Amino acid sequence: MKNKKEINAGIIVIGNEILSGRTIDTNTSTLSTWLNSLGIKVLEVRIIPDIEKNIVDTVNELRIKFNYVFTTGGIGPTHDDITSQSISKVFKIKYGIHKEAFSILEKYYEPGEFNKGRQKMAHMPIEANLILNPTSGAPGFYVENVFCLPGVPSILKSMLGGISNKLVGGNPILSVSINLRTVESEIAKNLSNVQDNFKSVDIGSYPFFKAGKLGVSIVLRCIDKFQINKCKSEIIKFVKEKNIEIIERD
Amino acid sequence: MKNKKEINAGIIVIGNEILSGRTIDTNTSTLSTWLNSLGIKVLEVRIIPDIEKNIVDTVNELRIKFNYVFTTGGIGPTHDDITSQSISKVFKIKYGIHKEAFSILEKYYEPGEFNKGRQKMAHMPIEANLILNPTSGAPGFYVENVFCLPGVPSILKSMLGGISNKLVGGNPILSVSINLRTVESEIAKNLSNVQDNFKSVDIGSYPFFKAGKLGVSIVLRCIDKFQINKCKSEIIKFVKEKNIEIIERD
Repeated sequence: MKNKKEINAGIIVIGNEILSGRTIDTNTSTLSTWLNSLGIKVLEVRIIPDIEKNIVDTVNELRIKFNYVFTTGGIGPTHDDITSQSISKVFKIKYGIHKEAFSILEKYYEPGEFNKGRQKMAHMPIEANLILNPTSGAPGFYVENVFCLPGVPSILKSMLGGISNKLVGGNPILSVSINLRTVESEIAKNLSNVQDNFKSVDIGSYPFFKAGKLGVSIVLRCIDKFQINKCKSEIIKFVKEKNIEIIERD
Repeated sequence: MKNKKEINAGIIVIGNEILSGRTIDTNTSTLSTWLNSLGIKVLEVRIIPDIEKNIVDTVNELRIKFNYVFTTGGIGPTHDDITSQSISKVFKIKYGIHKEAFSILEKYYEPGEFNKGRQKMAHMPIEANLILNPTSGAPGFYVENVFCLPGVPSILKSMLGGISNKLVGGNPILSVSINLRTVESEIAKNLSNVQDNFKSVDIGSYPFFKAGKLGVSIVLRCIDKFQINKCKSEIIKFVKEKNIEIIERD
């Protein structure tokens, strides 16, 4: 197996609606799953309010810390959408009409419908690279290693295909789950021993309730297929010795 | 209206299962909603991996920055549960058997069932204050302003009642939603004007799709009932002038 350097990313979720509890953030899960498939590991997520200073400071901190940074939210047409102007400040690039974005939106709307409110969505760092939006026209953008996406989950999802080829990933992170009809404390010691033997595999243990019954999901994550399979075998071995039932779970 | 100081909080979600995309975090929404009702505003959330240094550094950063810090996850019995020992390091309190927690768990389990794996859940900073767990026995705990809760959503929820009286909140943050059959760009200008007139009200605008139709939720948040009602009236005024339909939304 060729060993590549680990490539990592941070996610910044921008939006008071998440911090207030009103909305459950699903974009982190979407982005992380997609990034894993490209061999990019998400090491940190921050959820911050729609306040320019917070956005600028957080982006500045994470863009140095990680290979890639993804922001979600705050690129729409209303007064609380301030991500684009904040990114202009981060990179000291003029905030104004992005010609290509303007032209895309002008074509997207019926004549006369491209009003002032909509024109705000063409305002961004004028030298940004666009991320096309097949769902609702208004593009996202990226500057250096910072990728700015919208907050609406279905729109965000539809835009990822367009940027996969802009990212340089490492080896894809493989994941294997084993679901057991047991409780964590029954297997804690054995699992800890297996973890000691397989330093390169990240072994997670997650209790769950389903249909009124307790269970534990063991999740193995590693870039090396051979190691992950060997580790799985060792777990299956102690599971069988202890007569623990292996169950299916969707 | 009596003006109290704003009381704020940060949340730290500890767990590789959230960062990998496998699990969608719902604890942030649960905690934020509950904290709002106590007059405590969540200003930042961090999602970090099960790595001791990350936990220690993040807790140390946020416990100074905010009035309260809540952690979720990592207090179970398996090798990847390292929140308790990390908190011991943060506060330089010995990590070991917490007598009261041990006694609670000893009574909770049938004789002979309180095995080594389960005993790990009685290990924590030995001087911590306990947070009782009516669902599955194993307590959470708090030290100074840092409250440590489990990651399983149903268990976390059941433990909040027990700590409400440990928190000193400000005025509860009131929230009013207005749902409109329109698109954001149609109302962006009007909304921005209203925001300028009501600096104390946080006005958020969130597009949604429901049953194939577009809509926008306007959410007003403020501790002052009079201001929020006045602000709502101004929004309803321009909405009616523009013949925009107000809709129900669950």
